Amino acid sequence: MPKHLQREIEKLKRQILAIGAVVEESLHKAVRSLQVRDEKLAKRVIESDIEIDRIEVDMEEECLKVLALHQPVASDLRLIVAILKINNDLERIGDLAVNIAERAVFLSTQKPVDAPLDFAVMVEKTEEMLRKSLDALVDGDATLAHKVCLADDEVDAINREMHAQVQESIRLHPDQVESLLHLLSASRHLERVADHATNIAEDVIYMIEGHIVRHKEERFGSKSGAN
Amino acid sequence: MPKHLQREIEKLKRQILAIGAVVEESLHKAVRSLQVRDEKLAKRVIESDIEIDRIEVDMEEECLKVLALHQPVASDLRLIVAILKINNDLERIGDLAVNIAERAVFLSTQKPVDAPLDFAVMVEKTEEMLRKSLDALVDGDATLAHKVCLADDEVDAINREMHAQVQESIRLHPDQVESLLHLLSASRHLERVADHATNIAEDVIYMIEGHIVRHKEERFGSKSGAN
Repeated sequence: MPKHLQREIEKLKRQILAIGAVVEESLHKAVRSLQVRDEKLAKRVIESDIEIDRIEVDMEEECLKVLALHQPVASDLRLIVAILKINNDLERIGDLAVNIAERAVFLSTQKPVDAPLDFAVMVEKTEEMLRKSLDALVDGDATLAHKVCLADDEVDAINREMHAQVQESIRLHPDQVESLLHLLSASRHLERVADHATNIAEDVIYMIEGHIVRHKEERFGSKSGAN
Repeated sequence: MPKHLQREIEKLKRQILAIGAVVEESLHKAVRSLQVRDEKLAKRVIESDIEIDRIEVDMEEECLKVLALHQPVASDLRLIVAILKINNDLERIGDLAVNIAERAVFLSTQKPVDAPLDFAVMVEKTEEMLRKSLDALVDGDATLAHKVCLADDEVDAINREMHAQVQESIRLHPDQVESLLHLLSASRHLERVADHATNIAEDVIYMIEGHIVRHKEERFGSKSGAN
């Protein structure tokens, strides 16, 4: 690989990881604002999304510049296309953090629901998937990326359980339907974050192994694990 | 533009439109299966998704081949990157059609709900957005693409209304909560189809005008219009 292309690619990698770190933090704060009913924190997440949008656009422009100027082929081309797609997924995770924060803002004005809903395990697993998918990208670790894909089934299962619990709670407390539906949305948004982490892991596998793994395991259940 | 690159680009355009047509049909059938409670039709949608997944993978490989072999720059490069992203959005619309069909399968086994939920306008607007976004792509029509972006607000508003109606119906008929939540999911899936049609329209605008329009109008409301 020519030295200047190598330098550009290293720069793209650093940039996408920086975006990943910003998005991870945003998601973490959004979930925390939901768990501790912190309206101010939730509003900060919503406001700071403008920054994620800006860096996503810059990143895409950077990738296009490198494609146009250096005309990479083979594995370098695959890497840059993977970064373009990962950039998109990260931006959408940022949007989902905003969606969760919006639920948190609403719920902070309501009295807590009478339902045994605990997001802790789901949050932990989802954040771990996102972190590992980015580690797999930076370390070029396909084994780790495969693990992320497998973990998605667990988050899907938790989301389905959450759905059943909310349904039961609505039956018992129909007066709390509004708050319960907001909590159900938050669960669904988290499940979609896990889907995007899986997309990132699949792109890493494609980048390393040169073949497309997505759609392979979808035949055995719902496409998204979503209700 | 060299003649062989021009030929390849025309071929990519034809291919992405063919995928668009398959996805449009799948969505139309999924919604129909929900509206007329046709379990068989819903199951056909679910089964045929494997074909959409296959053509999406092929399309991505084609784009990468053209990038590697012809090393396009400027507007040709932008077009191919736009097609790569549109391909991704179409595949996800296919997944959402499956999600809607899965709801239809469940609902076909239940008695109809006591709720004044009518998907007709939402379906019509969403399908129109998808059709117009693809027309804008093939005709290189940025004005039409801008119209698609604006129409997204209408679908978001209908989704919010649907959410309020479902909430009210659950309060009145808590015993029907399960079916009502499935209908709410279908509404949300349709709203996400409209989001993907908007993404396609934004990519068309980027391809034609060379600047990125996404995130421009998001500051004024929820990122997705979703609850």
